[in-house]
Amino acid sequence: MRMVDLIEKKRAGEVLSEKEIDFIIKGYVEGKIPDYQVSAWLMAIFFQGMNNNEAAYLTKSMLNSGDVIDLTMIDGVKVDKHSTGGVGDKTTLVLGPLVASLGAKLAKLSGRGLGHTGGTLDKMESIPGMRFALTEEEFINQVNRINIAVAGQTKKLVPADKLLYALRDVTGTVPSIPLIASSIMSKKLASGADVICLDVKIGDGAFMKTIEDARELSKIMVSIGKAFDKKVTAFITSMEEPLGFAVGNRLEVKEVIETLNGKGPIDLENLCVSIAGYMVFYAEKADSLDAAIKMARENLHNGKALAKFYEFIAAQGGAIDSLDDFVKTEQVLPYKAKKSGYIKTIKALNIGLASMKLGGGRETKEDEIDPMVGIVLAKKVGDNVTQGDVLANIYANNSVNEDIITLLDEAYQIIDEPVGKTDIIKEIIS
Amino acid sequence: MRMVDLIEKKRAGEVLSEKEIDFIIKGYVEGKIPDYQVSAWLMAIFFQGMNNNEAAYLTKSMLNSGDVIDLTMIDGVKVDKHSTGGVGDKTTLVLGPLVASLGAKLAKLSGRGLGHTGGTLDKMESIPGMRFALTEEEFINQVNRINIAVAGQTKKLVPADKLLYALRDVTGTVPSIPLIASSIMSKKLASGADVICLDVKIGDGAFMKTIEDARELSKIMVSIGKAFDKKVTAFITSMEEPLGFAVGNRLEVKEVIETLNGKGPIDLENLCVSIAGYMVFYAEKADSLDAAIKMARENLHNGKALAKFYEFIAAQGGAIDSLDDFVKTEQVLPYKAKKSGYIKTIKALNIGLASMKLGGGRETKEDEIDPMVGIVLAKKVGDNVTQGDVLANIYANNSVNEDIITLLDEAYQIIDEPVGKTDIIKEIIS
Repeated sequence: MRMVDLIEKKRAGEVLSEKEIDFIIKGYVEGKIPDYQVSAWLMAIFFQGMNNNEAAYLTKSMLNSGDVIDLTMIDGVKVDKHSTGGVGDKTTLVLGPLVASLGAKLAKLSGRGLGHTGGTLDKMESIPGMRFALTEEEFINQVNRINIAVAGQTKKLVPADKLLYALRDVTGTVPSIPLIASSIMSKKLASGADVICLDVKIGDGAFMKTIEDARELSKIMVSIGKAFDKKVTAFITSMEEPLGFAVGNRLEVKEVIETLNGKGPIDLENLCVSIAGYMVFYAEKADSLDAAIKMARENLHNGKALAKFYEFIAAQGGAIDSLDDFVKTEQVLPYKAKKSGYIKTIKALNIGLASMKLGGGRETKEDEIDPMVGIVLAKKVGDNVTQGDVLANIYANNSVNEDIITLLDEAYQIIDEPVGKTDIIKEIIS
Repeated sequence: MRMVDLIEKKRAGEVLSEKEIDFIIKGYVEGKIPDYQVSAWLMAIFFQGMNNNEAAYLTKSMLNSGDVIDLTMIDGVKVDKHSTGGVGDKTTLVLGPLVASLGAKLAKLSGRGLGHTGGTLDKMESIPGMRFALTEEEFINQVNRINIAVAGQTKKLVPADKLLYALRDVTGTVPSIPLIASSIMSKKLASGADVICLDVKIGDGAFMKTIEDARELSKIMVSIGKAFDKKVTAFITSMEEPLGFAVGNRLEVKEVIETLNGKGPIDLENLCVSIAGYMVFYAEKADSLDAAIKMARENLHNGKALAKFYEFIAAQGGAIDSLDDFVKTEQVLPYKAKKSGYIKTIKALNIGLASMKLGGGRETKEDEIDPMVGIVLAKKVGDNVTQGDVLANIYANNSVNEDIITLLDEAYQIIDEPVGKTDIIKEIIS
């Protein structure tokens, strides 16, 4: 087999076999196939795509390039969740304790964020004392004991994905749906869960810009999951405006606690309840999906999910003594409406970038995050506002420069006609 | 400027500027832009193409990556010719002495062949004594003295093309028409001629398979030539069957001599006369194109072109004492018709591969060529044959193995209905 022939085959729009795809991934990981051939192949995939079988074979080869976490020592059904990343997306932090409080097992490996969307690990690390460098034994014991544990990703998972992603990043081959699907699914499958819920964000602040792309990505990921005998459900959800009100690590953790206490933003609560319903039902902790969703809603309002949250952070060394001290910045600057009317848009990307520029996110891998800073919306899309009303509060430890204000100015569109609220979940594909 | 942005721009089908293309080529030649980004960019060009301006900018950047031959010391109009390569293509060897005999100046840098089509240099090197390592002074003096000189390509011409071609070869990005056009034109322009005739072959034995592709390639090359103020004419010619009768280095030289003596195959004579006509007319050695073509035909039949050939090879140290000794092989094996009828096809590719397998061509750069061996057709497409007639003679120095016979068997299609002869020149684009 010669790599150049396989490049030409894909370039011509033909379908590659399991053996051929494995030859490429193995050869690349072993250093036998050079970067320049793989990048040409990736660009051919960008243009010619991959069918569901090819994407599953690619996922399998990537998965086999490294370790696969063995969760068989955990009793019961293991659930996991992945989000394609959004601004103010603290879903996992709500969902984890919520499903754990209902008996599902969440054994989650989580990553850090880069750019305008934060990573779950960054958000949880903002809680003093939390540690994520768990041994495999600690990790498994904790899930068996309290149903939930979150650890940082080890370096041995899916090395092929790390290599391929680094190459895609510099060769203009990131936005290929089968490549995105294989990258996500190889990591999820390597993490060992039985039930996987995927939150595919669409809109301005998300990687997928259109419902069509999100649907294609969702379908191919669900199909890959089926090829591995996993229960995979994809939720296509809106990321036009930030999720909930808070953007910024500790500000988001505070909103998570409010949500687990039944007092969170309705969009965030609805999303978490729906995903939790699927997880709990597939984990066989409810007789029907409807019953599972009802149980999830209840546990957000009866204190059980919140109690599980505190149990979880305590198990990993974390503690929040006072919420007031937890989110204290040097200044809180109100950002006010320049005109009266109905909020038509709050561009999630702009809010995410503004929070990053305040110090709340990383522009490069080396940047340190200020966990306190961020932006908390006071109003959401559809709200009626009067000129001078506070639209958002800026939590800052340094002076707020003009760039940040410009990002906010350009984030908001206020119009005269009423604007309807839309559902957070657009489609569910399983 | 970042390479990844330029890859994405081309991937999206946008047009790159002169500055952007120059950034890429300079950066690549200087080792600042890595192979893996360039190969992704080349694959994006394969899918999205390049417009005429981009192709001209690419040609210019490649041209500027190395030396450009200065032919200003040669008096008069310098002509040059390029063929995309075909089986039995000895056009340059006829054309050179022919146009030189009519006063045009041919200062030609020529390359070696690889695969089933031989290079002009390989064919001329089969003449004992010929040397091609001329100094620049020798080269220019010879053209001034006898109107013709052929030298091997120096290593400093268009290094960007050498790098890009080597990368394209292993990344499935060879068959991109703007890349082919820029590669050919950068080398031709670096060679310094004023008038350039391009022989774009189509058909089974050629790189271009369809008239549409050949037309697109021709138009873009003519357009690039215009951007550099050169007179460029492209001839789209048939390579369904081999050109002339002879395939194999010395066998072809022998046919060249016959053609220069007015006794060559009619397809080869017609092609050479037509291209020579354009060269001589643009070199201002005739009042009209028709007059130039007439003069070219005459010089093939009055001995002047042949005399120029012997003058030319003598000037570079070559001599052919006896044509009989020149093409002597251990055996000459007739290949006979298996049925009676009209020859519908003689696949040029098969004849070329058969000759290569006899030892007449290189499979890899290191292979040594046996200049004696090859195949001489006895019949051409359209001829009426009877079972047992000799279709071709195989000139061999080793035993002729089954692979070679199979290639010949599959080359010929003989049918019951009469088959018309077609013109060698399909279109002329200027």
